[in-house]
Amino acid sequence: MPRFFKRVSKKAGSSPGALVHIGKKRMEKARITMIDYDEKRFTAKEVTRIEECFPFKKKPTVTWINIDGLHEVDIIEKIGKEFGIHPLVLEDVLNTTQRPKVEDFDEYIYIVLKRLSYDEDKDETRSEQMSIILGDNYVISFQESAGDVFDFIRKSTQENKGVIRKSGPDYLAYRLIDSIVDNYFLILEKYGDRIEGIEEDMVSNPKQETLETIHAMKKEMIFLRRSVWPLREAVSGLSRSESRLMKKKTHLYMRDVYDHTIQVIDTVETFRDMTSGLLDLYLSSISNKMNEVMKVLTIIATIFIPLSFFAGIYGMNFNPEASSFNMPELNHPLGYPAVLAFMTIVALIMISYFKRKKWM
Amino acid sequence: MPRFFKRVSKKAGSSPGALVHIGKKRMEKARITMIDYDEKRFTAKEVTRIEECFPFKKKPTVTWINIDGLHEVDIIEKIGKEFGIHPLVLEDVLNTTQRPKVEDFDEYIYIVLKRLSYDEDKDETRSEQMSIILGDNYVISFQESAGDVFDFIRKSTQENKGVIRKSGPDYLAYRLIDSIVDNYFLILEKYGDRIEGIEEDMVSNPKQETLETIHAMKKEMIFLRRSVWPLREAVSGLSRSESRLMKKKTHLYMRDVYDHTIQVIDTVETFRDMTSGLLDLYLSSISNKMNEVMKVLTIIATIFIPLSFFAGIYGMNFNPEASSFNMPELNHPLGYPAVLAFMTIVALIMISYFKRKKWM
Amino acid sequence: MPRFFKRVSKKAGSSPGALVHIGKKRMEKARITMIDYDEKRFTAKEVTRIEECFPFKKKPTVTWINIDGLHEVDIIEKIGKEFGIHPLVLEDVLNTTQRPKVEDFDEYIYIVLKRLSYDEDKDETRSEQMSIILGDNYVISFQESAGDVFDFIRKSTQENKGVIRKSGPDYLAYRLIDSIVDNYFLILEKYGDRIEGIEEDMVSNPKQETLETIHAMKKEMIFLRRSVWPLREAVSGLSRSESRLMKKKTHLYMRDVYDHTIQVIDTVETFRDMTSGLLDLYLSSISNKMNEVMKVLTIIATIFIPLSFFAGIYGMNFNPEASSFNMPELNHPLGYPAVLAFMTIVALIMISYFKRKKWM
Amino acid sequence: MPRFFKRVSKKAGSSPGALVHIGKKRMEKARITMIDYDEKRFTAKEVTRIEECFPFKKKPTVTWINIDGLHEVDIIEKIGKEFGIHPLVLEDVLNTTQRPKVEDFDEYIYIVLKRLSYDEDKDETRSEQMSIILGDNYVISFQESAGDVFDFIRKSTQENKGVIRKSGPDYLAYRLIDSIVDNYFLILEKYGDRIEGIEEDMVSNPKQETLETIHAMKKEMIFLRRSVWPLREAVSGLSRSESRLMKKKTHLYMRDVYDHTIQVIDTVETFRDMTSGLLDLYLSSISNKMNEVMKVLTIIATIFIPLSFFAGIYGMNFNPEASSFNMPELNHPLGYPAVLAFMTIVALIMISYFKRKKWM
Amino acid sequence: MPRFFKRVSKKAGSSPGALVHIGKKRMEKARITMIDYDEKRFTAKEVTRIEECFPFKKKPTVTWINIDGLHEVDIIEKIGKEFGIHPLVLEDVLNTTQRPKVEDFDEYIYIVLKRLSYDEDKDETRSEQMSIILGDNYVISFQESAGDVFDFIRKSTQENKGVIRKSGPDYLAYRLIDSIVDNYFLILEKYGDRIEGIEEDMVSNPKQETLETIHAMKKEMIFLRRSVWPLREAVSGLSRSESRLMKKKTHLYMRDVYDHTIQVIDTVETFRDMTSGLLDLYLSSISNKMNEVMKVLTIIATIFIPLSFFAGIYGMNFNPEASSFNMPELNHPLGYPAVLAFMTIVALIMISYFKRKKWM
Repeated sequence: MPRFFKRVSKKAGSSPGALVHIGKKRMEKARITMIDYDEKRFTAKEVTRIEECFPFKKKPTVTWINIDGLHEVDIIEKIGKEFGIHPLVLEDVLNTTQRPKVEDFDEYIYIVLKRLSYDEDKDETRSEQMSIILGDNYVISFQESAGDVFDFIRKSTQENKGVIRKSGPDYLAYRLIDSIVDNYFLILEKYGDRIEGIEEDMVSNPKQETLETIHAMKKEMIFLRRSVWPLREAVSGLSRSESRLMKKKTHLYMRDVYDHTIQVIDTVETFRDMTSGLLDLYLSSISNKMNEVMKVLTIIATIFIPLSFFAGIYGMNFNPEASSFNMPELNHPLGYPAVLAFMTIVALIMISYFKRKKWM
Repeated sequence: MPRFFKRVSKKAGSSPGALVHIGKKRMEKARITMIDYDEKRFTAKEVTRIEECFPFKKKPTVTWINIDGLHEVDIIEKIGKEFGIHPLVLEDVLNTTQRPKVEDFDEYIYIVLKRLSYDEDKDETRSEQMSIILGDNYVISFQESAGDVFDFIRKSTQENKGVIRKSGPDYLAYRLIDSIVDNYFLILEKYGDRIEGIEEDMVSNPKQETLETIHAMKKEMIFLRRSVWPLREAVSGLSRSESRLMKKKTHLYMRDVYDHTIQVIDTVETFRDMTSGLLDLYLSSISNKMNEVMKVLTIIATIFIPLSFFAGIYGMNFNPEASSFNMPELNHPLGYPAVLAFMTIVALIMISYFKRKKWM
Repeated sequence: MPRFFKRVSKKAGSSPGALVHIGKKRMEKARITMIDYDEKRFTAKEVTRIEECFPFKKKPTVTWINIDGLHEVDIIEKIGKEFGIHPLVLEDVLNTTQRPKVEDFDEYIYIVLKRLSYDEDKDETRSEQMSIILGDNYVISFQESAGDVFDFIRKSTQENKGVIRKSGPDYLAYRLIDSIVDNYFLILEKYGDRIEGIEEDMVSNPKQETLETIHAMKKEMIFLRRSVWPLREAVSGLSRSESRLMKKKTHLYMRDVYDHTIQVIDTVETFRDMTSGLLDLYLSSISNKMNEVMKVLTIIATIFIPLSFFAGIYGMNFNPEASSFNMPELNHPLGYPAVLAFMTIVALIMISYFKRKKWM
Repeated sequence: MPRFFKRVSKKAGSSPGALVHIGKKRMEKARITMIDYDEKRFTAKEVTRIEECFPFKKKPTVTWINIDGLHEVDIIEKIGKEFGIHPLVLEDVLNTTQRPKVEDFDEYIYIVLKRLSYDEDKDETRSEQMSIILGDNYVISFQESAGDVFDFIRKSTQENKGVIRKSGPDYLAYRLIDSIVDNYFLILEKYGDRIEGIEEDMVSNPKQETLETIHAMKKEMIFLRRSVWPLREAVSGLSRSESRLMKKKTHLYMRDVYDHTIQVIDTVETFRDMTSGLLDLYLSSISNKMNEVMKVLTIIATIFIPLSFFAGIYGMNFNPEASSFNMPELNHPLGYPAVLAFMTIVALIMISYFKRKKWM
Repeated sequence: MPRFFKRVSKKAGSSPGALVHIGKKRMEKARITMIDYDEKRFTAKEVTRIEECFPFKKKPTVTWINIDGLHEVDIIEKIGKEFGIHPLVLEDVLNTTQRPKVEDFDEYIYIVLKRLSYDEDKDETRSEQMSIILGDNYVISFQESAGDVFDFIRKSTQENKGVIRKSGPDYLAYRLIDSIVDNYFLILEKYGDRIEGIEEDMVSNPKQETLETIHAMKKEMIFLRRSVWPLREAVSGLSRSESRLMKKKTHLYMRDVYDHTIQVIDTVETFRDMTSGLLDLYLSSISNKMNEVMKVLTIIATIFIPLSFFAGIYGMNFNPEASSFNMPELNHPLGYPAVLAFMTIVALIMISYFKRKKWM
């Protein structure tokens, strides 16, 4: 449940723009890393005080500041003051219940995304908020916890692979967003495997647990949908952005990310349809099985209950000596074989009836 | 039901613009409070006659008049005359069955919202209507009953916290709307908890009551949806308003409220999907249980009904003395053990059949 | 069914613009009433020949001609000729299967609406067509049968209440439409009560009749939806009309009617969702009850069928004298109490099994 | 099935614009009729060679050529050459699997419609393609088979009824389309009757055949929907057409056809909802009946199985002479009446239990 | 599953524009064929090195290069360099998980489509990616494996049939797309046949396998929908393209392909509705059958269980000699016939009860 609805009530009643961290504290201490580069130079360092990054702001080089851990509100506050960020943006950075969105404040673009990761222990997807502020010559990224999702970008920047060192901060922002979206495919693969697993389980033996797994899958799909639809809107906004911060050349790349997002949504919707199909299949299988059970019961009962009745008849103790009407069969020399034969015939008729009805 | 459809029929047939209070009378006596402020001055008072507020209208300071209780029609009428409000607006203020909406009358903007509160006793959400009239230098708010939802705003104005004293009446209106929307999250939390509760109940033991709780939840969700979708439209209208009463700076704040509204809708839709999922799960569980019951019945009946028949055979009273065909088994020295052995074999065959069918 | 689909086939094959009355003849004789007014004068009369109304057409006063009963085609034809109405409009006036719509022919606006009324006898909603032609200084309204829905307007015009006598024919048209829409709320109240009734019935005892009532409600909702959605479109068209016949001032009032229409749709949709919810609840209740029935059967059968078998064993007539293997229990001094004790133990084990399964 | 998906594969692989007739050959020989008229003159003839019609093309009169039967490809080819029709249009005329559509080629407008007819024998709706080419002073219509749907138009043209002789070819095209759309109402009436019939059947006795009829109705509705939705699009396109071939005056008539189309769609959607409702009702009725069956079984079994057990007890053959513990009841003077009384009491308790549960 | 979600994770983490083949390697060796033509000349050859095609690029003739097999990344790389294709496009050509789309890069248009083929062995539809790059005087097509889908185009170009040799590369591109879309109809026919088959199976005997077939069909429909909806978007984009590469004349042809696409979607949606209908029919049939089974069981049990009880009564061993109350019937001269008559009457009453209930 908490994944579906993070508690924001501690916020309700405070002034707008008040900086309060809303969300789980996922790290002991916030980690600040900084990279500064242009085509020729490259500086990377991990700092303890955010102020150490500020001198780079004035240089024409691209400065990327990454903050892991949002609970140290004063860091965000200082960044806000230094880079002239609107208080409402800072509030959104700290409030991890945001929907993915893009907001364009002439001086900078504010981007909120959700980074998904699969929690193997709880067998469910976790979502962490990622904020990116893209300015004239800087990118600031905020994450709830440290992750290795950006390591590849850091490395290829350092090694001057691809065009990243030749491009501006908008290309860097694109790379960050791209790596977040690419990560979604890993999650989707996990779910693809699980759906396949459920389907196989179902064929072999449908159980109450199968049902609960399907229900859990449906919940995961609700969760995923809720994450990816606004993502689409946000990325679409970026790919059509008319901000001067987003260069023409980067638009092409953004459109590529947008295509990936559509593909993610497509897959999520397909999985949702398939999960619904699984539930239908499950319910139909249960009905089928019930039908089969009922047929066995009916066949047995319908054959033996009448036969038992006939046996019961000749188990009655009417006194044959009281009159010749009273159960003369009992003393007939062929009484017993005749009754057995009669019973066999009744049973055979029943069986042929069931055969004709295709119940047997 | 009354929550879904308030009776408006007493209105049908009257002239448009006729001032009739439609709704429950929730307070004995209407309460009028007034705050008047600018960056330097601050006046707050509770008045008994609405006319006491009118002198403040001419001052350039921001005047906020709040009326709790709508049944005293003459108060609304006097305000209408003094501030030049259109009769249809006054009619809407009094008619508590309005949908949330925003209407722009050059001279003022009329805003209708629904304030939700959770009624612990009846275990359901209640909705009260809130109207806001935003003018050049005044805000008038109308509530069905007194509540503490605005206390925080009043206090932070008095203590000159935040930017409220430096801003105009549009910012005040924003704060009122923001506090109403923030309040929705409290309600959503309650429902989040309830859905979680139902899910746990279901796993342990599905009952008729579980079903009724789910049905009640579904109704609540229909109710919530109906409240929040027009809210979105109204807030969206405000955030894109081109009225001169809504300053550029406030637009940003309104967009923030709009984001919250989207989040509320998202959550309501998620809850709705989850409630539907719960109903499916419930029905599937019932089917599963039925299947299990049927299996037990079938196993028992299928084993013992044939055995009873065989016992019945040897309970027949055919006279062995009439001929040697008549039940010679009864006099056979090993008749009884043979029959018992036969019965045991039949039972074992049945059991192995059920085992193979995975019914046991 | 006739309510869902009025027969129009007698029309198929005729020329467009041919005047044929399509619908039930609801009155013996058409009734023509006329009101003519401006701020100072007021004339009202019931005429027998439509030509008596035509002289008023030239006066600058507002003339309202109301025709109850559509089967006298020549009246409509004469009006058409006198007021210069397009043949297709006259055809639509006579064809009571129209969808609500608004059509703007420069010289006049043609409005089709549906007036709903609740037929207590048949327990269903009836719909009658109402056409309004709004011209420069006249309003002509056509109804299928006489009703009291406009009496209030007539009276308040005569008594010069409100602004009607000071306003033009567009305000009169607004009042007619408003009274039609307000009438919908009365119908909705009836349905609100019925839904509440069904819900209570269901809790106490779901029956086949409950199901049929829900089905009937669903059909009514389909019918209502089909009536109100085009109404919305039509009223929306009016409230945004750019015709010179619809004055700026009246737009505000039309927007108010539009708000009511939205509220009607909202309520119909809510009722539809609730009716669907009731069907789900009904089906689930039936499943629940079936489960309960099955449990009782299973418990009884599972306890007594094995016991009967054991009783059957000792009812067999094997001859104890033939060998000591043959039913020695029968002659054992404690045979009978031992068997009874054994049976009691078996029954207790079964009961405790069912208790553990929570079936008892 | 063939109604849902006509085989077009014999076409796949050929060049675009290649003239191949795709569809059933419905007539032995194509029939060509021609009408040529203006306000004063009227010529009608049936020709054997299409070339006989061509001289009329140059005259300023309106020429209407109607071809029944599409399998004689050379006729279509000659028309195409004479009137300068694009090969793709000719291809569409011949390919009877087109969706209704309107295409504007400056020189002419190409219109494809579906003419529905009810096949009483197969109890299903058949659809035939109708193409109309509207040019400056000619209308060419192509039908798959001869029908009487246009007879009325031919007759009223000859007799100079209505405005047709005074109007241009666009009005003629309107009349053709109008008669096609009016025809839909006849089909809808048939379905209205059938739905009503099913509903009555259901109330009296739901059977497997009822289910199959509902399923067939659902399929018909899918088929109808698929036919009417593109029709709406096509007619809407015509009513808003800006082609010089479609005169202002005719727009009004086209809007009228459009209204009819909307009404057709409305009715189809209503029927679809009602058919779904019937399926729900059917399934619920089946559940109800099953429940009733189960109750009877449970009541009988629950009363008599325990009683049989008690009778079985006293049918055991324990030897009362072996000890005084062994079935002393058998020799008690009131044993038999006491047992009968006990059984009666047990039965009464059971019955009162079922009464309380409302199963009886 | 792999058809629904191809693994792209090996890609995640690499630089954008990096050329990696994502998909199955379907051919041993890539096959390169080239056709070069104008109205007079025609050259066709199969080359081993892509460089052999490059000289034709400079000629004004239309050059069509077709590559079957995507795993030889260097071929694609060389083409990219020679024709100046953007790295992101090359990446998309190699990544066979693209959705159908059209992208316009002034110098060329990039088109991605899915070619469907029916895999008879696995009884499912396979999808292969087809990329087309349309430039000023060239068309380059990339396929995952060799197929005969373009043979017809090659042949009719060589034989100078139709207008292809007189038209530009845009017409060639149209022909390629057209043949891909036409191919969809073949697939749809297969599914049409299968649906018809399932329907017939169902009527004769619904089985668990029928259910599994329906489920498989539903999955195929999800797959097909996912393929055709983006196709529609792509083709629609082409038919409205404002690129100078797409000549006015070709627009008409593209609109024709668009119509076909709509028809494909229509059919897929119809099949989807029909498959859902089949599932409903299946479930209802199962319910019906269950009901029938239950009726048989109930009839048998309800008739014979009470009769068995009565037989059981007279099988009790109460000693008639202990008192005259103890089973005096046993010694009555007509005891046995009376009991038999009583039993017959009970059975007849039961049977008439079932007849009245229409269970028999």
